[in-house]
Amino acid sequence: MLYLIGLGLSYKSDITVRGLEIVKKCSRVYLEHYTSILMAASKEELEEFYGNKVILADRELVESGAEEILKNSETEDVAFLVVGDPFGATTHTDLVLRAKQSNIPVEIVHNASVMNAVGACGLQLYNFGQTISMVFFTDNWRPDSWYGKIMENRRIGLHTLVLLDIKVKEQSIENMARGRLIYEPPRYMSISQCCEQLLEIEESRGTKAYTPDTPVVAISRLGSAGQSFKSGTIQELSEYDAGEPLHSLVILGRQCHELELEYLLEFCDNKEKFRNDILQDQEYFKPAPWVPPTEEEDED
Amino acid sequence: MLYLIGLGLSYKSDITVRGLEIVKKCSRVYLEHYTSILMAASKEELEEFYGNKVILADRELVESGAEEILKNSETEDVAFLVVGDPFGATTHTDLVLRAKQSNIPVEIVHNASVMNAVGACGLQLYNFGQTISMVFFTDNWRPDSWYGKIMENRRIGLHTLVLLDIKVKEQSIENMARGRLIYEPPRYMSISQCCEQLLEIEESRGTKAYTPDTPVVAISRLGSAGQSFKSGTIQELSEYDAGEPLHSLVILGRQCHELELEYLLEFCDNKEKFRNDILQDQEYFKPAPWVPPTEEEDED
Repeated sequence: MLYLIGLGLSYKSDITVRGLEIVKKCSRVYLEHYTSILMAASKEELEEFYGNKVILADRELVESGAEEILKNSETEDVAFLVVGDPFGATTHTDLVLRAKQSNIPVEIVHNASVMNAVGACGLQLYNFGQTISMVFFTDNWRPDSWYGKIMENRRIGLHTLVLLDIKVKEQSIENMARGRLIYEPPRYMSISQCCEQLLEIEESRGTKAYTPDTPVVAISRLGSAGQSFKSGTIQELSEYDAGEPLHSLVILGRQCHELELEYLLEFCDNKEKFRNDILQDQEYFKPAPWVPPTEEEDED
Repeated sequence: MLYLIGLGLSYKSDITVRGLEIVKKCSRVYLEHYTSILMAASKEELEEFYGNKVILADRELVESGAEEILKNSETEDVAFLVVGDPFGATTHTDLVLRAKQSNIPVEIVHNASVMNAVGACGLQLYNFGQTISMVFFTDNWRPDSWYGKIMENRRIGLHTLVLLDIKVKEQSIENMARGRLIYEPPRYMSISQCCEQLLEIEESRGTKAYTPDTPVVAISRLGSAGQSFKSGTIQELSEYDAGEPLHSLVILGRQCHELELEYLLEFCDNKEKFRNDILQDQEYFKPAPWVPPTEEEDED
């Protein structure tokens, strides 16, 4: 049996009781280790907690070593651990499909992921549109296809969850070219860098999917002891030091109710200004006021 | 301290290890018991598992008895258990705000909810738009404000998660009028009823937010041993018997990639037909093909 087990957001004890029971009995335990990290636990701490050896699975192993992971799992129990939920931001549908093709039974143990725990900032999950990913810009690679998605979400009043890039076990171009297995230190995008990249693309596109005064919420270390929220405008948060990773950002849509606003006000520097920023921003993409149909239109 | 603790989707052991440690030490434990149910565990089983008494909290207690729940929680530990995640489909922001106003510290223990575990059907969470709720229609109450939301989602190619109504501890109008505390048996909306209500409203509105041939995925008993998925058109699933509750439905948007499709094909009766249904449905709301700008436009 192949088990895909979500680890939740932060602590080693964020695994579910059922998940832990399974991990303890598995003959091999892989930990997916390139799209997210467990903030408050090292590999060694996990091994002690599970009473089992943990194999770190990097991108290469997961994307081209599926056979190794699935080996003997017709008869043995193999666990593949994923920070968050196995079908959260990064899905492992390919691994599941591979298993199914080999007639290996698969069981999923779900857990919290940023995709639902983001509700902790006070915004209703109901009113989120499509999620986007913000990658580190380089000198010659500044992808901005997410811009249109923010526009689409905001046109219908929805919030946008922005997932911030992380780089774990990446090689420099030089080391890659020379075939040297030397890895760069891990990098995690900060809230300020994400906001700067948002501002840069709005500046160059100029079609007002959002403005520097659009309200956003920074979500830092979600689900950990050091969890924090900060609300402000994109401009304001482009100068905000959010501290240690991991971070996510929510760009607000027009649909923000009084109870949600009350919650967000707890996290800003200047309540009166932020309330005003929200009201101003809600003017964008506001539907035209309803006008009763004329007699002619009525007959249509 | 007030703890809001997610229980996950189904088993008593879907609680996280951290959540269980907290529940064990609390002096009072409430279980929110009107917006969802834990499919595979009774109150008594939970009490045995927690080694603690569980108080069922109905809508009345949560909405007007916040003081009772929060009583002494400045000095004692009180747990408020929620099926799924505390900030999932039904949020308890009001309870948290009440606690904050009374300077009671609050801690959240997140867990899986349908809002993220729905990814188990194979569709990318990235491509979901706003979530809607489908309530039981009555003779004179057939709310359809969700129709516009499906339209908005599908216009930009996004999937729509439909949460199906449940009625737990509801009184009949007669019993309510007579002040008799007699409750109706619990009711859970079926996939077929949801699809029938979808068809009825499309029939009366006629603006093609979707059609009877639009592909959908039925998600039944998500996260439990009896979990099942069924893909087909709305028309087909209006005659589908999905079995025991709980159920949810996903209405597909245009953005369905080959890998997602491969996954969904596992769950349908006729693969060739379903693949064709998806291709046909993707013609709706398809963006106009890109045309190179004329010289004149280029000069703008």
